[in-house]
Amino acid sequence: MNEFQRRTGEINDLLCVLNLLNWDARTQMPPGGVKTRGQQMATVTALALERLLAPEYAASARALLRGAPDDRAAAQALEATSALGRVPEQLNRDLAVLRSEAQEAWVQAKAASNFALFAPYLRRMVNLNRQLADALGYQDHPYDALLNLYEPGLTSAGLRGLFAPLREHHVGLLREVMARPAPRSDFLRRPYPVQGQKAYCLKAAQRFGYDLERGRLDVSAHPFEISFTRQDVRITTRFQENFLNGALFGTLHETGHALYEQGIDPAYTRSVFASDLTGLYAVGGTSYGTHESQSRLWENRIGRSRAYWEAHFGDLQAQFPEQLADVNAQDFYRAVNEVRPSLIRVEADELTYDLHIMLRVDIERDLIAGELDVDDLPEVWNGRIQQDLGLSVPDDARGVLQDIHWSTGLIGSFPTYTVGNVMASQFYEAARRELPELESQLEQADYRPLLDWLTRHIYHHGRSRSAHELLMDATGRSLDPQPYLTYLSGKYREVYGLPG
Amino acid sequence: MNEFQRRTGEINDLLCVLNLLNWDARTQMPPGGVKTRGQQMATVTALALERLLAPEYAASARALLRGAPDDRAAAQALEATSALGRVPEQLNRDLAVLRSEAQEAWVQAKAASNFALFAPYLRRMVNLNRQLADALGYQDHPYDALLNLYEPGLTSAGLRGLFAPLREHHVGLLREVMARPAPRSDFLRRPYPVQGQKAYCLKAAQRFGYDLERGRLDVSAHPFEISFTRQDVRITTRFQENFLNGALFGTLHETGHALYEQGIDPAYTRSVFASDLTGLYAVGGTSYGTHESQSRLWENRIGRSRAYWEAHFGDLQAQFPEQLADVNAQDFYRAVNEVRPSLIRVEADELTYDLHIMLRVDIERDLIAGELDVDDLPEVWNGRIQQDLGLSVPDDARGVLQDIHWSTGLIGSFPTYTVGNVMASQFYEAARRELPELESQLEQADYRPLLDWLTRHIYHHGRSRSAHELLMDATGRSLDPQPYLTYLSGKYREVYGLPG
Repeated sequence: MNEFQRRTGEINDLLCVLNLLNWDARTQMPPGGVKTRGQQMATVTALALERLLAPEYAASARALLRGAPDDRAAAQALEATSALGRVPEQLNRDLAVLRSEAQEAWVQAKAASNFALFAPYLRRMVNLNRQLADALGYQDHPYDALLNLYEPGLTSAGLRGLFAPLREHHVGLLREVMARPAPRSDFLRRPYPVQGQKAYCLKAAQRFGYDLERGRLDVSAHPFEISFTRQDVRITTRFQENFLNGALFGTLHETGHALYEQGIDPAYTRSVFASDLTGLYAVGGTSYGTHESQSRLWENRIGRSRAYWEAHFGDLQAQFPEQLADVNAQDFYRAVNEVRPSLIRVEADELTYDLHIMLRVDIERDLIAGELDVDDLPEVWNGRIQQDLGLSVPDDARGVLQDIHWSTGLIGSFPTYTVGNVMASQFYEAARRELPELESQLEQADYRPLLDWLTRHIYHHGRSRSAHELLMDATGRSLDPQPYLTYLSGKYREVYGLPG
Repeated sequence: MNEFQRRTGEINDLLCVLNLLNWDARTQMPPGGVKTRGQQMATVTALALERLLAPEYAASARALLRGAPDDRAAAQALEATSALGRVPEQLNRDLAVLRSEAQEAWVQAKAASNFALFAPYLRRMVNLNRQLADALGYQDHPYDALLNLYEPGLTSAGLRGLFAPLREHHVGLLREVMARPAPRSDFLRRPYPVQGQKAYCLKAAQRFGYDLERGRLDVSAHPFEISFTRQDVRITTRFQENFLNGALFGTLHETGHALYEQGIDPAYTRSVFASDLTGLYAVGGTSYGTHESQSRLWENRIGRSRAYWEAHFGDLQAQFPEQLADVNAQDFYRAVNEVRPSLIRVEADELTYDLHIMLRVDIERDLIAGELDVDDLPEVWNGRIQQDLGLSVPDDARGVLQDIHWSTGLIGSFPTYTVGNVMASQFYEAARRELPELESQLEQADYRPLLDWLTRHIYHHGRSRSAHELLMDATGRSLDPQPYLTYLSGKYREVYGLPG
């Protein structure tokens, strides 16, 4: 192990430790722990940053590159330390302080459903993120610098090209769908005892290939996946006694993230290819969008498919015989694909979900560009929800205050949800082309060939290839909305009996 | 916050993080995580040590002392960094490597019940600990340097003076007790469903004052208490379906440790008074013996007292009505105080427990002094168990290989178990003198006055006072076996109906 690898390993350990502090705080920590946990996380973060910015670290990477100019790990490390080095220390400190204040303010503003309480914090957050964009640098639009933190290579211009056809398609299809009668879905809201839900969720995760020797399922307020190397990849979900979908599809979603992390080449453990060094985050997936493509693929392409429910409705019915006595696989498949415009993003169906994202992206971009004033947000938000979904927003809590993202400093991450949807369909279509038996394997609930294909083309590579490279290698095309549009259209036309 | 406090806080954070990595590994981590967790712990340990030994840290302490020569925190920090600084880096590295190798060898040797497999590792461990003693320095006996790590101020000579009367007393009383019929205790080994045990244990811990807002109870192979500041103090236990005592008294024991940590002055959070800097361990209790005095006090003085079972047998019977139908409070009290010489230390009753400890202490001390050869250990061990307890050791697994301590590098910690027993009785007697209502409060299951007294005299002070100072302040005497002998004698004479 050379000097560069030794230092990288140490930084990686610290980022994994940070993930554990985070996981524990969200799943196990007693309430009193909150008083001192934040300081512990701040100390570990500061140490990781100090290690990353140590001149000896950059020097060790440069020494490697002199001998091997193609060494990608060293190049990526240098790129990250250079980006981090461009951010003034004071800005980092200001952001850290504001993040914790803004989150606190957001919690209170949301509870009071009063955007005015959060507005001053958001204004400062936008200002600091604008400074961050300036420090990091960009060519065309300051938002591009922020996008680059979450989805390297993505730009405002690229997003515009991607979103325009999606928006046109979704709005049109939504109009058609809403003119048809809704499938019945009442049975999803019967009482489902949590013990039974948990047993079923665990079985479902394992069926896809989630390895419990290197993972576990816990409960948290918001479901998430997190890892401390590929050897220990944990997921959480949230159980609701009177609603089956939340825990079930939440688990399938996080399982997709977990399969990615568990599938990374063991040789990359503790390396540059297992950490987002710029984001100070131990994660093996190469970008937010690529990660989301895998959670979406397993949750939606597989978990909401007809084949899946024809194979597995029987197990679910065996787990809940009374609740599902009057339901069959076809009913259930239609129910979990019901389109129902909703005020809340995280409750949205596949068709309206992207519309929620586009609203947020437009707002973020215009805020950063200084083309939209924070005070105007509720009006913009409510108008757009009315226009896109035909719903009146009754209060800020169910409107502009619903998401935690902006209060935590995340500006520029929302687009990756829709990018993930798009990539998921590209990857899935490529797998189908290469695996002629795929459809019949899925009908037989044999997920191994798909998992192996995804592992070979995506998971295995960790962060050693960019999202763009993965797409080009696996599908022959860069980001392309067509397979996604074809998929959505096909599914909803079938579920709602619309003419093809 | 001055430079010294800032640096101390950071070191404290790292030690708390280390505790979390440890807790997680022992209670939550999936098996696969073991591959990378060790490296994460090594990295955090190295960083903590680096921070402690940084010249700037000692300088910041010295700067404080120039202005305030009585600043105890600065003095303690300097003392710790000076001790750590005396240990050669190579010795630290050798110890770290040997610890992990020796533990592995111990696991295998115990499984094969073959001491010869462990002997070479123990020999090296003794050698390195002897080097450690030389590096740390001592006046009379090298064992004193090691004792000082766990129980500052304790010496071989002091131990001899303490153990002689204990040994004489215990052996004599044991002979008398064994001549009497044993109380019935068959009902402790009936089937007790784990759910019910867990509910009861949690209630019992809370009854003593364990604050679940700042704590939680989990399951682990070996019960322990660990904290990440006083805001988050966790305990574990181990449930056996067919044996009630293990989980129940294990929980009361760990609760005692937890009450200590939860009771530390909040002003000491992240300070020198909340960490064993020499031991690189975030703990607020002032010494191993003092800590053990509190676990023993709550487990034995309270949890195995007649008053406790007269107050609480009813709750236990309500939890397990069938299993305890033919038992009353008096039967139960006698059963949990049965004396039964055993091969295994952790299963020993209060009377024979110290004899197990003395055997280990004599061996440790002689090994370190070079007066006993590792190869002779089984013979020495088995002979002494025969002599003290009248038992033949059938194999090494149930003899010299039973404890993990030596394989983890702990040489010199065993005496603190008996020191804890002795201190527990001293503190208890002092509380009784000061609180005239104590006995009747305990009969009414009112534990608050005792907890308040212990908090005021012990817990509150964290590591800002030594064990000796606490004893002198609270009891007016240094370590004194008499109250302990009086207590044991009184209890067993009553349980076994012996003449007083």
